[in-house]
Amino acid sequence: MATAPSAKLTPLLKDELDIVIPTIRNLDFLEMWRPFFEQYHLIIVQDGDPSKKIRVPDGFDCQLYNRNDVNRILGPKASCISFKDSACRCFGYLVSKKKYIFTIDDDCFVAKDPSGKEINALEQHIKNLLTPSTTHFFNTLYDPYREGADFVRGYPFSLREGAPTAVSHGLWLNIPDYDAPTQLVKPLERNTRYVDAVMTVPKGTLFPMCGMNLAFDRELIGPAMYFGLMGDGQPIGRYDDMWAGWCMKVICDHLGLGVKTGLPYIWHSKASNPFVNLKKEYKGIFWQEKAIPFFQSVSLPKECSSVEKCYLALAGEVKSKLGEVDPYFIKLADAMVTWIEAWNMVNSPGEKPAMTSLPNATSKK
Amino acid sequence: MATAPSAKLTPLLKDELDIVIPTIRNLDFLEMWRPFFEQYHLIIVQDGDPSKKIRVPDGFDCQLYNRNDVNRILGPKASCISFKDSACRCFGYLVSKKKYIFTIDDDCFVAKDPSGKEINALEQHIKNLLTPSTTHFFNTLYDPYREGADFVRGYPFSLREGAPTAVSHGLWLNIPDYDAPTQLVKPLERNTRYVDAVMTVPKGTLFPMCGMNLAFDRELIGPAMYFGLMGDGQPIGRYDDMWAGWCMKVICDHLGLGVKTGLPYIWHSKASNPFVNLKKEYKGIFWQEKAIPFFQSVSLPKECSSVEKCYLALAGEVKSKLGEVDPYFIKLADAMVTWIEAWNMVNSPGEKPAMTSLPNATSKK
Repeated sequence: MATAPSAKLTPLLKDELDIVIPTIRNLDFLEMWRPFFEQYHLIIVQDGDPSKKIRVPDGFDCQLYNRNDVNRILGPKASCISFKDSACRCFGYLVSKKKYIFTIDDDCFVAKDPSGKEINALEQHIKNLLTPSTTHFFNTLYDPYREGADFVRGYPFSLREGAPTAVSHGLWLNIPDYDAPTQLVKPLERNTRYVDAVMTVPKGTLFPMCGMNLAFDRELIGPAMYFGLMGDGQPIGRYDDMWAGWCMKVICDHLGLGVKTGLPYIWHSKASNPFVNLKKEYKGIFWQEKAIPFFQSVSLPKECSSVEKCYLALAGEVKSKLGEVDPYFIKLADAMVTWIEAWNMVNSPGEKPAMTSLPNATSKK
Repeated sequence: MATAPSAKLTPLLKDELDIVIPTIRNLDFLEMWRPFFEQYHLIIVQDGDPSKKIRVPDGFDCQLYNRNDVNRILGPKASCISFKDSACRCFGYLVSKKKYIFTIDDDCFVAKDPSGKEINALEQHIKNLLTPSTTHFFNTLYDPYREGADFVRGYPFSLREGAPTAVSHGLWLNIPDYDAPTQLVKPLERNTRYVDAVMTVPKGTLFPMCGMNLAFDRELIGPAMYFGLMGDGQPIGRYDDMWAGWCMKVICDHLGLGVKTGLPYIWHSKASNPFVNLKKEYKGIFWQEKAIPFFQSVSLPKECSSVEKCYLALAGEVKSKLGEVDPYFIKLADAMVTWIEAWNMVNSPGEKPAMTSLPNATSKK
């Protein structure tokens, strides 16, 4: 490239954010993201067979963890990390030492805004995270902290400071994130509508959080970002991010933290196979009918003042209330507890900065 | 015009919708709306001095009510209708015999979408009202009932029927609907962002409802659309639509009805005087800090199964809870009761269709 590295602008939060990517294939998709990602640290979580070699394009500062690394670092607590499922990405959140996480799927490319300009998704996520959320009252002109916008008439002044933003949920052009039944019914539907808005998901409202294009403040909400037990040996798949989203939202509401959705868009390149998806999803389709009312009504005790305490209390509620729906939820509740133990083990104040030079972890540059 | 009337397409809900316009001036702004409004019936509510003659462009099917009409039709109950304030528009909702209402301010013009096409605001409102709302769960791709969109993965199937839509709240390009302090601080701010979205304001979330560009299902929610006591003789102004919005939303949540906001945009031509506005608003700025927590926590008894019953229960709560804030709320609560009495009087099943040929009401065409 013509520009010398020294001439490059330092991007926002360069040393305070990790990009986490779960993958089973070579990461050629990173070429397209190079202008936006190359100055950040990448955490690759290899999904599935650890003997397979994953190729990362040159010039990225990255660290790769495979199943052997997960097992060695977490020991018996590795059981909470899904195998052969992109839910394993949450291991990357756990070993990160940064304040912020951006996670993206390897079939997501750079989208263009209506003017044809390539969208720096990461930069928009950072803007979302660094400005407050409007959790307690709805602003009809969307994000009042964006340039050219503000709070409208009738918005209480005492609420205009907003709440700290914990999560920024980005969207997808081209292939929408549909479930298998909708994919089957509308195989040709593409999302072409660019909605130029960022908004807060109000307090008390649940939403379907997709893990494809997601950023969060790890210090504020990290321990709630557990993607559950999916994939190999589990009766369900494709509900990893949904599960994390429901748990996270209940805890954000309890702790007064904000969740935004909307911009930025990425370009989602390829629809996954709806028949395979249906097999993974069908139990979830039943179970979510019980899980949603549970999450809509669950309340956390006042003394739960940290994310970890909230999460353990929630695990207890899951076990007692959703355990009746299926024994899977009892196993999942136990894994939620193990996850918090693993989080605390790796992130306890006395721990050395995580695994920067492990034998099996690849770091290039 | 070149097109003969007989060749015109019949617009949606032509005989089921009234357009209500409060005004103090000649309605030349209707010229711009002619292609979209001319086949509908207009109800003009003349705000202020009834001796002033309001000119309506030829060719509109309209009926004008001034203060003398309000007094004659409602008798002593006319006290609930504001004088010298656009809050008087709700009188138009009361005397309408149609299922749907669209109300618009006389400083609102036809906006253009990003492609340069003139926006038929009324048509979009009708689409919003005729499709369900997603009140119980947030859909990240916005209105799932719009063409090219659907429910995303993780949206419970049992909730996909949605809720009947009672209200469609449209937005404004150019002059945003700011309060006086924001107008004073940002005199030059213009809204240029066209957000191509319609969304549901979730259950349990309040929002600032602006009366400038608003449509609703009068049969579903009409009696809750009371715009309060504002203007002449009252200590407050510019909270008429806000008050209606808070009351309406609490009742919609209780009855399982939906409220949408977003498209359509109108072009708001002229900012009102911020100094005048501040004088009208300043008590409201204090009072809303008490009113919002009140509306966020008020709950209506289960036996309130109609809008009228809900509204009377709410009036009782306003009197007992907000009456402590200022005696104005006691007067307002009484006016809320009078409003329902007036509504029932004019809309009781035995009543003849309202006032189609009153001496003081002008009907042209």
